[in-house]
Amino acid sequence: MVNQQLDFLLPAPEEKPQILHQAMRYSVFAGGKRLRPVLLLATAEALEKASAPFLPFACALELIHTYSLIHDDLPAMDDDDLRRGLPTCHKKFGEAQAILAGDALLTYAFNLMIMCRGKGISPDRLLWAIDEVAFGAGLKGMIVGQVADMSAENKAISLDELKYIHRHKTGALFRVSVRAGGILSGADDDQLRHLTSYAENMGLAFQITDDILDVVGDEKKLGKPVGSDEKKQKATYPALLGLEESKALAREAVEQAIRFLDPFGPGAEPLRQVATSLIDRES
Amino acid sequence: MVNQQLDFLLPAPEEKPQILHQAMRYSVFAGGKRLRPVLLLATAEALEKASAPFLPFACALELIHTYSLIHDDLPAMDDDDLRRGLPTCHKKFGEAQAILAGDALLTYAFNLMIMCRGKGISPDRLLWAIDEVAFGAGLKGMIVGQVADMSAENKAISLDELKYIHRHKTGALFRVSVRAGGILSGADDDQLRHLTSYAENMGLAFQITDDILDVVGDEKKLGKPVGSDEKKQKATYPALLGLEESKALAREAVEQAIRFLDPFGPGAEPLRQVATSLIDRES
Repeated sequence: MVNQQLDFLLPAPEEKPQILHQAMRYSVFAGGKRLRPVLLLATAEALEKASAPFLPFACALELIHTYSLIHDDLPAMDDDDLRRGLPTCHKKFGEAQAILAGDALLTYAFNLMIMCRGKGISPDRLLWAIDEVAFGAGLKGMIVGQVADMSAENKAISLDELKYIHRHKTGALFRVSVRAGGILSGADDDQLRHLTSYAENMGLAFQITDDILDVVGDEKKLGKPVGSDEKKQKATYPALLGLEESKALAREAVEQAIRFLDPFGPGAEPLRQVATSLIDRES
Repeated sequence: MVNQQLDFLLPAPEEKPQILHQAMRYSVFAGGKRLRPVLLLATAEALEKASAPFLPFACALELIHTYSLIHDDLPAMDDDDLRRGLPTCHKKFGEAQAILAGDALLTYAFNLMIMCRGKGISPDRLLWAIDEVAFGAGLKGMIVGQVADMSAENKAISLDELKYIHRHKTGALFRVSVRAGGILSGADDDQLRHLTSYAENMGLAFQITDDILDVVGDEKKLGKPVGSDEKKQKATYPALLGLEESKALAREAVEQAIRFLDPFGPGAEPLRQVATSLIDRES
């Protein structure tokens, strides 16, 4: 559903300027689990709301995620040549186009969010949700996390600093994906608190299992070489806590996440499945 | 007023991560005429609305303008070392921080626009205005113009192509600055049409005089070397039409712009002055 909608919403590759639209599409359709859109839509279901009207908003989260990958891969940043087994955007289209494609995806994400205007969503809640996404992608989340991550390179950092980086760099966007789903669905304060705690624990589990996969994962299934964190001397959970303790911590975070869904009915099953799937994930 | 508000709204330079906030502030406070915020506020005055509640929205336009300059100056793009007489953001803070500071300014701009929530502005109109800004900065404006500008480098282009580039690269943001001021102030369709025509002519005059200044301007007042367009073999109005015809075209555009303000009262005086000031501008 998300992939179809993304294809429908992105400018056609033959539309001018073609290189920009092709670069945007190349990175959006280079794979990806669509985890952030799924989280938003699953949250709407947990609140027994039809999720279809939120599809453009859900797609916006994927555009923001994709823009962050394109910019992070740039030579001046992580300087990665491959992403999901394919050449990165700047390897394929050149650096200037990659910067602009990232800028365009970020900017267009706000148009997609606003596309949910009307459709039974209160404009006040829509503004609230967009505000949270902007903070989560920016000054209270992703960008701050990337800056912290870059200054931590080749340095010994503590578990607290590692948690700070992940909470901002990847955690914040998971958090707002769930919260935006709640806000748009009319969740009350108590429901939002539970959903937020679910998202924070789910995000932690995601990051720990991400680190674990970089040690024990299958390169083919991951679409990238394993051991890259160690090579870059990046601080990770396995490096700081060991593999077994990291696995235990991930399992614990998943259990915690699911416990915070107790007040929700069977509609929360998709959210529970997302959390559970992290334990056995192979990519 | 705009400068004070920008200082108030941007994260403090001593707040963590300091390098990000310092890079953002460095470029925002490196000078600049604040023309886009002024256009928005002057449009509110033309419609006899108190402009103060729109100040954060006006500042958002300046953040978007600044982000576009930072990214345009990058080595992969125009590769400029100086901007307004100072080292460009990547020269001062490094390329990675410049990319991230640009990303952060663009993202934070959306938080600032949403800050106008309440304050007597209808949330529907606020969403409408934000949507127009996102399109003007992105897929229907600035980014598309930058892509077209880059593919035109070192090529002979027609006057129509030159107009296309400017209408998107710089014109679109002027246009939405005025339109957003109108939308937020509750302008009706007819008023919006007039304001839009004002903005389009004003933007054209701005671009022509910009090109003229690059030929006959004073380097000290401009804060950048003159003759750079010719050196880069960039298509400009003086190159395509000659200096005198370019000056006549600029004067004509200013007169047109002012004529479109006829239906407005004395409150439109600031908008008239902005247009008139372009004729004699020295920077």
